[in-house]
Amino acid sequence: MLNLYVVLVEPEQAGNIGFVARVMKNFGFKNLVLVNPRTRPDAIEAKIFASHAVDVLESALVVDSLSSLSSKLDFMIGTTSKVGGDYNVLRVPITPRELAHVLAEVSGNVGIVFGRESYGLTNDELRLCDLIVTIPASNEYPVLNVSHAVAIILYEIYTFLEKPSFKGFREASVVEKTVLVKYFNDFVNLLEYDPYKKEIVITVFKHIIGRAFISGREAHTLIGAFRKAVELLSSSNE
Amino acid sequence: MLNLYVVLVEPEQAGNIGFVARVMKNFGFKNLVLVNPRTRPDAIEAKIFASHAVDVLESALVVDSLSSLSSKLDFMIGTTSKVGGDYNVLRVPITPRELAHVLAEVSGNVGIVFGRESYGLTNDELRLCDLIVTIPASNEYPVLNVSHAVAIILYEIYTFLEKPSFKGFREASVVEKTVLVKYFNDFVNLLEYDPYKKEIVITVFKHIIGRAFISGREAHTLIGAFRKAVELLSSSNE
Repeated sequence: MLNLYVVLVEPEQAGNIGFVARVMKNFGFKNLVLVNPRTRPDAIEAKIFASHAVDVLESALVVDSLSSLSSKLDFMIGTTSKVGGDYNVLRVPITPRELAHVLAEVSGNVGIVFGRESYGLTNDELRLCDLIVTIPASNEYPVLNVSHAVAIILYEIYTFLEKPSFKGFREASVVEKTVLVKYFNDFVNLLEYDPYKKEIVITVFKHIIGRAFISGREAHTLIGAFRKAVELLSSSNE
Repeated sequence: MLNLYVVLVEPEQAGNIGFVARVMKNFGFKNLVLVNPRTRPDAIEAKIFASHAVDVLESALVVDSLSSLSSKLDFMIGTTSKVGGDYNVLRVPITPRELAHVLAEVSGNVGIVFGRESYGLTNDELRLCDLIVTIPASNEYPVLNVSHAVAIILYEIYTFLEKPSFKGFREASVVEKTVLVKYFNDFVNLLEYDPYKKEIVITVFKHIIGRAFISGREAHTLIGAFRKAVELLSSSNE
Protein backbone atom coordinates (compact mmCIF):
# COMPACT_ATOMS: atom_id res chain seq x y z
CA MET A 1 0.00 0.00 0.00
CA LEU A 2 1.14 3.51 -0.82
CA ASN A 3 1.48 5.70 2.27
CA LEU A 4 2.10 9.27 1.15
CA TYR A 5 3.76 12.03 3.19
CA VAL A 6 3.86 15.70 2.20
CA VAL A 7 7.13 17.10 3.52
CA LEU A 8 7.74 20.85 3.80
CA VAL A 9 11.37 21.84 4.36
CA GLU A 10 11.82 24.96 6.50
CA PRO A 11 8.49 26.57 5.58
CA GLU A 12 8.61 30.30 6.24
CA GLN A 13 4.96 31.37 6.13
CA ALA A 14 2.29 30.01 8.47
CA GLY A 15 -0.40 30.76 5.85
CA ASN A 16 1.31 28.46 3.37
CA ILE A 17 1.42 25.61 5.89
CA GLY A 18 -2.31 26.08 6.44
CA PHE A 19 -3.03 26.11 2.70
CA VAL A 20 -0.97 22.95 2.21
CA ALA A 21 -2.94 21.20 4.98
CA ARG A 22 -6.21 22.26 3.32
CA VAL A 23 -5.32 21.07 -0.17
CA MET A 24 -3.98 17.78 1.27
CA LYS A 25 -7.35 17.12 2.85
CA ASN A 26 -9.09 18.18 -0.41
CA PHE A 27 -7.36 15.22 -2.08
CA GLY A 28 -7.64 12.82 0.84
CA PHE A 29 -4.05 12.96 2.14
CA LYS A 30 -3.41 13.35 5.87
CA ASN A 31 0.32 12.95 6.60
CA LEU A 32 2.08 16.30 6.82
CA VAL A 33 5.73 16.55 7.90
CA LEU A 34 7.43 19.85 8.73
CA VAL A 35 11.22 19.89 8.65
CA ASN A 36 12.61 22.59 10.94
CA PRO A 37 9.77 25.07 10.31
CA ARG A 38 10.74 28.77 10.43
CA THR A 39 7.29 29.76 11.62
CA ARG A 40 4.87 28.32 14.16
CA PRO A 41 2.56 25.76 12.49
CA ASP A 42 0.04 26.36 15.28
CA ALA A 43 -0.13 30.10 14.52
CA ILE A 44 -3.64 31.45 14.11
CA GLU A 45 -2.80 32.31 10.48
CA ALA A 46 -2.02 28.67 9.70
CA LYS A 47 -5.38 27.61 11.15
CA ILE A 48 -7.30 30.24 9.20
CA PHE A 49 -5.69 29.12 5.93
CA ALA A 50 -6.22 25.44 6.80
CA SER A 51 -9.98 26.12 7.15
CA HIS A 52 -11.65 22.69 7.65
CA ALA A 53 -8.27 20.91 7.63
CA VAL A 54 -7.02 22.03 11.04
CA ASP A 55 -6.88 18.31 11.93
CA VAL A 56 -4.17 17.76 9.29
CA LEU A 57 -2.26 20.76 10.64
CA GLU A 58 -2.51 19.62 14.25
CA SER A 59 -1.37 16.08 13.51
CA ALA A 60 1.68 17.28 11.56
CA LEU A 61 4.98 15.62 12.43
CA VAL A 62 7.84 18.04 13.12
CA VAL A 63 11.42 16.82 12.51
CA ASP A 64 14.86 18.40 12.65
CA SER A 65 16.35 17.54 9.30
CA LEU A 66 15.52 15.97 5.97
CA SER A 67 18.36 13.45 6.27
CA SER A 68 16.92 12.11 9.55
CA LEU A 69 13.60 11.65 7.74
CA SER A 70 15.03 9.97 4.66
CA SER A 71 15.93 6.82 6.58
CA LYS A 72 12.27 6.41 7.58
CA LEU A 73 10.92 6.71 4.05
CA ASP A 74 11.18 4.05 1.35
CA PHE A 75 11.16 6.57 -1.45
CA MET A 76 11.71 10.33 -1.47
CA ILE A 77 10.62 12.63 -4.28
CA GLY A 78 12.07 16.12 -4.52
CA THR A 79 10.37 19.06 -6.21
CA THR A 80 12.03 21.96 -7.96
CA SER A 81 11.03 24.73 -10.31
CA LYS A 82 14.61 25.16 -11.43
CA VAL A 83 15.27 23.12 -14.53
CA GLY A 84 18.96 22.39 -14.71
CA GLY A 85 19.29 21.37 -18.34
CA ASP A 86 20.82 18.25 -19.80
CA TYR A 87 24.07 18.53 -17.86
CA ASN A 88 22.74 18.55 -14.33
CA VAL A 89 21.89 14.92 -13.60
CA LEU A 90 20.59 15.94 -10.18
CA ARG A 91 17.82 18.04 -11.64
CA VAL A 92 16.50 15.93 -14.52
CA PRO A 93 12.85 16.12 -13.65
CA ILE A 94 9.71 14.16 -14.43
CA THR A 95 6.28 15.79 -14.65
CA PRO A 96 3.55 15.44 -12.01
CA ARG A 97 1.62 13.18 -14.40
CA GLU A 98 4.63 10.91 -14.85
CA LEU A 99 5.02 10.85 -11.06
CA ALA A 100 1.42 9.67 -10.69
CA HIS A 101 2.17 6.80 -13.09
CA VAL A 102 5.29 5.88 -11.11
CA LEU A 103 3.48 5.97 -7.75
CA ALA A 104 0.76 3.66 -9.07
CA GLU A 105 3.41 0.91 -9.03
CA VAL A 106 5.01 1.81 -5.69
CA SER A 107 4.11 0.71 -2.19
CA GLY A 108 5.54 1.73 1.16
CA ASN A 109 6.24 5.12 2.73
CA VAL A 110 6.77 7.78 0.08
CA GLY A 111 7.60 11.41 0.86
CA ILE A 112 7.09 14.28 -1.57
CA VAL A 113 9.44 17.05 -0.49
CA PHE A 114 8.79 20.76 -1.08
CA GLY A 115 11.40 23.46 -0.45
CA ARG A 116 11.43 26.85 1.21
CA GLU A 117 9.34 29.67 -0.26
CA SER A 118 12.49 31.73 -0.79
CA TYR A 119 14.95 29.32 -2.39
CA GLY A 120 13.44 25.84 -2.64
CA LEU A 121 15.54 22.77 -1.92
CA THR A 122 19.33 22.79 -1.85
CA ASN A 123 21.39 20.48 -4.06
CA ASP A 124 22.27 18.44 -0.97
CA GLU A 125 18.58 17.98 -0.21
CA LEU A 126 17.80 17.06 -3.83
CA ARG A 127 20.64 14.52 -3.68
CA LEU A 128 18.74 12.72 -0.88
CA CYS A 129 15.80 12.23 -3.25
CA ASP A 130 15.21 9.26 -5.56
CA LEU A 131 13.35 11.29 -8.15
CA ILE A 132 12.80 14.95 -9.00
CA VAL A 133 9.47 16.43 -10.12
CA THR A 134 8.98 19.77 -11.85
CA ILE A 135 5.64 21.33 -12.74
CA PRO A 136 5.71 22.54 -16.35
CA ALA A 137 5.15 26.32 -16.29
CA SER A 138 5.78 29.51 -18.20
CA ASN A 139 9.45 30.44 -18.65
CA GLU A 140 8.55 34.00 -17.74
CA TYR A 141 7.61 33.08 -14.16
CA PRO A 142 7.95 29.34 -13.43
CA VAL A 143 8.07 29.57 -9.62
CA LEU A 144 4.74 28.54 -8.12
CA ASN A 145 3.72 29.24 -4.56
CA VAL A 146 4.39 26.08 -2.53
CA SER A 147 0.71 25.43 -1.81
CA HIS A 148 -0.11 25.64 -5.53
CA ALA A 149 2.68 23.19 -6.30
CA VAL A 150 1.31 20.79 -3.65
CA ALA A 151 -2.21 21.24 -5.07
CA ILE A 152 -1.19 20.29 -8.61
CA ILE A 153 0.95 17.31 -7.63
CA LEU A 154 -1.65 15.87 -5.23
CA TYR A 155 -4.39 16.48 -7.81
CA GLU A 156 -2.45 14.43 -10.38
CA ILE A 157 -1.87 11.60 -7.90
CA TYR A 158 -5.48 11.67 -6.72
CA THR A 159 -6.99 11.61 -10.20
CA PHE A 160 -4.62 8.89 -11.38
CA LEU A 161 -5.01 6.60 -8.37
CA GLU A 162 -8.69 7.17 -7.62
CA LYS A 163 -10.04 7.58 -11.17
CA PRO A 164 -12.88 9.52 -9.61
CA SER A 165 -16.26 9.79 -11.24
CA PHE A 166 -18.73 12.41 -10.21
CA LYS A 167 -21.21 11.05 -7.72
CA GLY A 168 -24.58 10.98 -9.37
CA PHE A 169 -23.19 11.76 -12.79
CA ARG A 170 -23.73 9.00 -15.30
CA GLU A 171 -22.45 9.66 -18.78
CA ALA A 172 -25.00 9.01 -21.51
CA SER A 173 -24.71 5.52 -22.95
CA VAL A 174 -24.05 4.85 -26.62
CA VAL A 175 -27.68 3.79 -26.95
CA GLU A 176 -28.91 7.04 -25.42
CA LYS A 177 -26.69 9.09 -27.72
CA THR A 178 -27.85 7.08 -30.73
CA VAL A 179 -31.49 7.58 -29.80
CA LEU A 180 -30.84 11.28 -29.34
CA VAL A 181 -29.20 11.58 -32.76
CA LYS A 182 -32.08 9.58 -34.32
CA TYR A 183 -34.65 12.01 -32.91
CA PHE A 184 -32.53 14.96 -34.00
CA ASN A 185 -32.38 13.37 -37.45
CA ASP A 186 -36.18 13.01 -37.60
CA PHE A 187 -36.44 16.59 -36.43
CA VAL A 188 -34.12 17.96 -39.13
CA ASN A 189 -35.93 15.92 -41.77
CA LEU A 190 -39.06 17.91 -40.97
CA LEU A 191 -37.33 21.27 -41.43
CA GLU A 192 -37.58 21.20 -45.25
CA TYR A 193 -33.89 21.66 -45.75
CA ASP A 194 -31.93 20.62 -48.85
CA PRO A 195 -30.49 17.14 -48.36
CA TYR A 196 -26.89 18.42 -48.30
CA LYS A 197 -27.74 21.00 -45.65
CA LYS A 198 -29.52 18.35 -43.56
CA GLU A 199 -26.36 16.30 -43.65
CA ILE A 200 -24.25 19.20 -42.34
CA VAL A 201 -26.63 20.04 -39.51
CA ILE A 202 -26.80 16.43 -38.37
CA THR A 203 -23.04 16.00 -38.54
CA VAL A 204 -22.48 19.13 -36.49
CA PHE A 205 -24.96 17.96 -33.87
CA LYS A 206 -23.32 14.53 -33.68
CA HIS A 207 -19.91 16.10 -33.21
CA ILE A 208 -21.15 18.36 -30.46
CA ILE A 209 -22.78 15.46 -28.64
CA GLY A 210 -19.57 13.50 -29.01
CA ARG A 211 -17.44 16.22 -27.48
CA ALA A 212 -19.78 17.38 -24.75
CA PHE A 213 -19.66 14.46 -22.29
CA ILE A 214 -23.43 14.60 -21.88
CA SER A 215 -25.13 12.83 -19.00
CA GLY A 216 -27.95 10.32 -19.25
CA ARG A 217 -30.27 12.95 -17.81
CA GLU A 218 -29.24 15.51 -20.40
CA ALA A 219 -29.69 13.00 -23.22
CA HIS A 220 -33.23 12.21 -22.06
CA THR A 221 -34.01 15.90 -21.71
CA LEU A 222 -32.99 16.55 -25.32
CA ILE A 223 -34.62 13.36 -26.61
CA GLY A 224 -37.90 14.54 -25.04
CA ALA A 225 -37.54 17.94 -26.65
CA PHE A 226 -36.84 16.65 -30.17
CA ARG A 227 -39.53 13.97 -29.92
CA LYS A 228 -42.00 16.67 -29.00
CA ALA A 229 -40.76 18.85 -31.88
CA VAL A 230 -41.16 15.92 -34.27
CA GLU A 231 -44.72 15.31 -33.09
CA LEU A 232 -45.67 18.95 -33.50
CA LEU A 233 -44.01 19.36 -36.90
CA SER A 234 -45.57 16.12 -38.18
CA SER A 235 -49.08 17.09 -37.13
CA SER A 236 -48.75 20.59 -38.61
CA ASN A 237 -47.67 18.98 -41.89
CA GLU A 238 -50.77 16.81 -42.04
CA MET B 1 -7.16 31.99 -31.42
CA LEU B 2 -8.13 31.21 -27.86
CA ASN B 3 -8.15 34.27 -25.62
CA LEU B 4 -8.65 33.17 -22.04
CA TYR B 5 -10.02 35.27 -19.17
CA VAL B 6 -9.97 34.28 -15.52
CA VAL B 7 -13.08 35.77 -13.92
CA LEU B 8 -13.45 36.06 -10.14
CA VAL B 9 -16.99 36.82 -8.96
CA GLU B 10 -17.11 38.98 -5.81
CA PRO B 11 -13.75 37.85 -4.40
CA GLU B 12 -13.65 38.49 -0.66
CA GLN B 13 -9.93 38.17 0.20
CA ALA B 14 -7.22 40.37 -1.32
CA GLY B 15 -4.65 37.61 -0.75
CA ASN B 16 -6.64 35.23 -2.92
CA ILE B 17 -6.79 37.77 -5.77
CA GLY B 18 -3.00 38.10 -5.50
CA PHE B 19 -2.47 34.33 -5.52
CA VAL B 20 -4.75 33.98 -8.55
CA ALA B 21 -2.70 36.64 -10.41
CA ARG B 22 0.50 34.78 -9.54
CA VAL B 23 -0.65 31.37 -10.70
CA MET B 24 -2.09 32.88 -13.88
CA LYS B 25 1.33 34.27 -14.74
CA ASN B 26 2.92 30.93 -13.79
CA PHE B 27 0.94 29.37 -16.64
CA GLY B 28 1.25 32.28 -19.06
CA PHE B 29 -2.25 33.76 -18.70
CA LYS B 30 -2.65 37.54 -18.26
CA ASN B 31 -6.35 38.48 -18.45
CA LEU B 32 -7.89 38.78 -15.00
CA VAL B 33 -11.46 40.07 -14.55
CA LEU B 34 -12.91 40.97 -11.16
CA VAL B 35 -16.70 41.10 -10.90
CA ASN B 36 -17.79 43.46 -8.12
CA PRO B 37 -14.85 42.65 -5.80
CA ARG B 38 -15.60 42.82 -2.05
CA THR B 39 -12.03 43.82 -1.25
CA ARG B 40 -9.56 46.22 -2.85
CA PRO B 41 -7.52 44.43 -5.52
CA ASP B 42 -4.79 47.07 -5.07
CA ALA B 43 -4.46 46.27 -1.35
CA ILE B 44 -0.90 45.64 -0.20
CA GLU B 45 -1.90 42.06 0.71
CA ALA B 46 -2.94 41.36 -2.89
CA LYS B 47 0.44 42.62 -4.13
CA ILE B 48 2.39 40.54 -1.63
CA PHE B 49 0.53 37.38 -2.66
CA ALA B 50 0.91 38.24 -6.36
CA SER B 51 4.70 38.37 -5.90
CA HIS B 52 6.19 38.80 -9.40
CA ALA B 53 2.74 38.97 -10.99
CA VAL B 54 1.74 42.46 -9.81
CA ASP B 55 1.44 43.37 -13.51
CA VAL B 56 -1.43 40.89 -13.90
CA LEU B 57 -3.09 42.31 -10.79
CA GLU B 58 -2.69 45.93 -11.94
CA SER B 59 -4.08 45.27 -15.41
CA ALA B 60 -7.17 43.48 -14.04
CA LEU B 61 -10.49 44.55 -15.51
CA VAL B 62 -13.17 45.38 -12.92
CA VAL B 63 -16.83 45.00 -13.95
CA ASP B 64 -20.17 45.35 -12.18
CA SER B 65 -21.89 42.07 -12.95
CA LEU B 66 -21.35 38.71 -14.57
CA SER B 67 -24.32 39.21 -16.93
CA SER B 68 -22.76 42.40 -18.36
CA LEU B 69 -19.58 40.42 -19.00
CA SER B 70 -21.30 37.42 -20.59
CA SER B 71 -22.25 39.41 -23.71
CA LYS B 72 -18.56 40.19 -24.31
CA LEU B 73 -17.40 36.57 -24.09
CA ASP B 74 -17.98 33.92 -26.73
CA PHE B 75 -17.97 31.11 -24.22
CA MET B 76 -18.31 31.10 -20.44
CA ILE B 77 -17.27 28.22 -18.21
CA GLY B 78 -18.52 28.05 -14.64
CA THR B 79 -16.76 26.25 -11.81
CA THR B 80 -18.34 24.56 -8.84
CA SER B 81 -17.33 22.15 -6.13
CA LYS B 82 -20.94 21.20 -5.52
CA VAL B 83 -21.87 18.13 -7.50
CA GLY B 84 -25.59 18.18 -8.08
CA GLY B 85 -26.18 14.59 -9.14
CA ASP B 86 -28.01 13.29 -12.18
CA TYR B 87 -31.11 15.40 -11.63
CA ASN B 88 -29.56 18.84 -11.61
CA VAL B 89 -28.90 19.58 -15.28
CA LEU B 90 -27.35 22.92 -14.33
CA ARG B 91 -24.57 21.29 -12.41
CA VAL B 92 -23.52 18.34 -14.59
CA PRO B 93 -19.80 19.00 -14.62
CA ILE B 94 -16.86 18.03 -16.76
CA THR B 95 -13.36 17.59 -15.32
CA PRO B 96 -10.50 20.08 -15.83
CA ARG B 97 -8.84 17.60 -18.21
CA GLU B 98 -11.98 17.33 -20.30
CA LEU B 99 -12.17 21.13 -20.33
CA ALA B 100 -8.62 21.30 -21.70
CA HIS B 101 -9.67 18.97 -24.55
CA VAL B 102 -12.72 21.13 -25.29
CA LEU B 103 -10.72 24.38 -25.29
CA ALA B 104 -8.20 22.93 -27.75
CA GLU B 105 -11.00 23.13 -30.34
CA VAL B 106 -12.36 26.55 -29.35
CA SER B 107 -11.32 30.01 -30.50
CA GLY B 108 -12.48 33.44 -29.36
CA ASN B 109 -12.91 35.01 -25.94
CA VAL B 110 -13.44 32.39 -23.25
CA GLY B 111 -14.01 33.18 -19.58
CA ILE B 112 -13.49 30.71 -16.75
CA VAL B 113 -15.61 31.90 -13.86
CA PHE B 114 -14.79 31.26 -10.19
CA GLY B 115 -17.21 32.04 -7.36
CA ARG B 116 -16.93 33.67 -3.97
CA GLU B 117 -14.78 32.06 -1.27
CA SER B 118 -17.83 31.71 0.99
CA TYR B 119 -20.51 30.26 -1.29
CA GLY B 120 -19.22 29.94 -4.86
CA LEU B 121 -21.44 30.80 -7.81
CA THR B 122 -25.22 31.08 -7.56
CA ASN B 123 -27.54 29.00 -9.76
CA ASP B 124 -28.35 32.16 -11.74
CA GLU B 125 -24.66 32.71 -12.40
CA LEU B 126 -24.14 29.05 -13.38
CA ARG B 127 -27.09 29.38 -15.76
CA LEU B 128 -25.16 32.08 -17.66
CA CYS B 129 -22.38 29.56 -18.32
CA ASP B 130 -22.09 27.23 -21.32
CA LEU B 131 -20.29 24.52 -19.41
CA ILE B 132 -19.57 23.61 -15.78
CA VAL B 133 -16.23 22.31 -14.50
CA THR B 134 -15.66 20.53 -11.20
CA ILE B 135 -12.28 19.45 -9.83
CA PRO B 136 -12.50 15.83 -8.61
CA ALA B 137 -11.72 15.84 -4.88
CA SER B 138 -12.27 13.95 -1.66
CA ASN B 139 -15.89 13.70 -0.52
CA GLU B 140 -14.74 14.54 2.99
CA TYR B 141 -13.66 18.07 2.01
CA PRO B 142 -14.16 18.81 -1.69
CA VAL B 143 -14.06 22.63 -1.45
CA LEU B 144 -10.72 23.95 -2.67
CA ASN B 145 -9.45 27.44 -2.02
CA VAL B 146 -10.19 29.51 -5.13
CA SER B 147 -6.52 30.05 -5.99
CA HIS B 148 -5.89 26.28 -5.82
CA ALA B 149 -8.86 25.69 -8.13
CA VAL B 150 -7.48 28.27 -10.59
CA ALA B 151 -4.03 26.65 -10.34
CA ILE B 152 -5.31 23.17 -11.24
CA ILE B 153 -7.56 24.29 -14.09
CA LEU B 154 -4.91 26.54 -15.69
CA TYR B 155 -2.28 23.81 -15.24
CA GLU B 156 -4.48 21.37 -17.17
CA ILE B 157 -5.08 23.88 -19.96
CA TYR B 158 -1.41 24.86 -20.10
CA THR B 159 -0.10 21.30 -20.23
CA PHE B 160 -2.69 20.27 -22.83
CA LEU B 161 -2.26 23.26 -25.14
CA GLU B 162 1.49 23.80 -24.77
CA LYS B 163 2.63 20.19 -24.44
CA PRO B 164 5.67 21.57 -22.66
CA SER B 165 8.98 19.79 -22.60
CA PHE B 166 11.64 20.68 -20.12
CA LYS B 167 14.19 23.08 -21.55
CA GLY B 168 17.47 21.24 -21.86
CA PHE B 169 15.90 17.90 -21.04
CA ARG B 170 16.12 15.46 -23.91
CA GLU B 171 14.67 12.05 -23.30
CA ALA B 172 17.03 9.22 -24.18
CA SER B 173 16.48 7.94 -27.72
CA VAL B 174 15.58 4.34 -28.47
CA VAL B 175 19.14 3.85 -29.74
CA GLU B 176 20.61 5.18 -26.51
CA LYS B 177 18.37 2.95 -24.42
CA THR B 178 19.25 -0.04 -26.60
CA VAL B 179 22.98 0.66 -26.26
CA LEU B 180 22.53 1.03 -22.52
CA VAL B 181 20.72 -2.32 -22.25
CA LYS B 182 23.40 -3.92 -24.46
CA TYR B 183 26.17 -2.79 -22.10
CA PHE B 184 24.15 -3.89 -19.09
CA ASN B 185 23.73 -7.25 -20.82
CA ASP B 186 27.50 -7.57 -21.38
CA PHE B 187 28.00 -6.57 -17.76
CA VAL B 188 25.61 -9.20 -16.39
CA ASN B 189 27.18 -11.85 -18.63
CA LEU B 190 30.41 -11.29 -16.74
CA LEU B 191 28.83 -11.81 -13.34
CA GLU B 192 28.88 -15.62 -13.56
CA TYR B 193 25.17 -15.95 -12.96
CA ASP B 194 23.01 -18.89 -14.03
CA PRO B 195 21.42 -18.16 -17.40
CA TYR B 196 17.90 -17.96 -15.93
CA LYS B 197 19.04 -15.48 -13.32
CA LYS B 198 20.78 -13.35 -15.97
CA GLU B 199 17.52 -13.19 -17.85
CA ILE B 200 15.64 -11.93 -14.78
CA VAL B 201 18.21 -9.25 -13.95
CA ILE B 202 18.26 -7.96 -17.53
CA THR B 203 14.48 -7.91 -17.76
CA VAL B 204 14.18 -5.99 -14.50
CA PHE B 205 16.74 -3.45 -15.71
CA LYS B 206 14.95 -3.01 -19.04
CA HIS B 207 11.65 -2.43 -17.28
CA ILE B 208 13.15 0.15 -14.98
CA ILE B 209 14.73 2.01 -17.89
CA GLY B 210 11.44 1.89 -19.70
CA ARG B 211 9.53 3.39 -16.79
CA ALA B 212 12.06 5.96 -15.64
CA PHE B 213 11.93 8.56 -18.45
CA ILE B 214 15.72 8.74 -18.52
CA SER B 215 17.49 11.58 -20.30
CA GLY B 216 20.19 11.28 -22.96
CA ARG B 217 22.71 12.49 -20.42
CA GLU B 218 21.66 9.87 -17.89
CA ALA B 219 21.81 7.12 -20.52
CA HIS B 220 25.37 8.12 -21.44
CA THR B 221 26.34 8.30 -17.79
CA LEU B 222 25.16 4.72 -17.20
CA ILE B 223 26.57 3.44 -20.51
CA GLY B 224 29.96 4.79 -19.46
CA ALA B 225 29.70 3.09 -16.08
CA PHE B 226 28.73 -0.33 -17.46
CA ARG B 227 31.31 -0.14 -20.26
CA LYS B 228 33.95 0.56 -17.65
CA ALA B 229 32.68 -2.34 -15.53
CA VAL B 230 32.78 -4.65 -18.58
CA GLU B 231 36.39 -3.63 -19.30
CA LEU B 232 37.47 -4.24 -15.74
CA LEU B 233 35.64 -7.55 -15.37
CA SER B 234 36.97 -8.79 -18.72
CA SER B 235 40.59 -7.98 -17.86
CA SER B 236 40.32 -9.58 -14.40
CA ASN B 237 38.98 -12.75 -16.11
CA GLU B 238 41.99 -12.96 -18.44
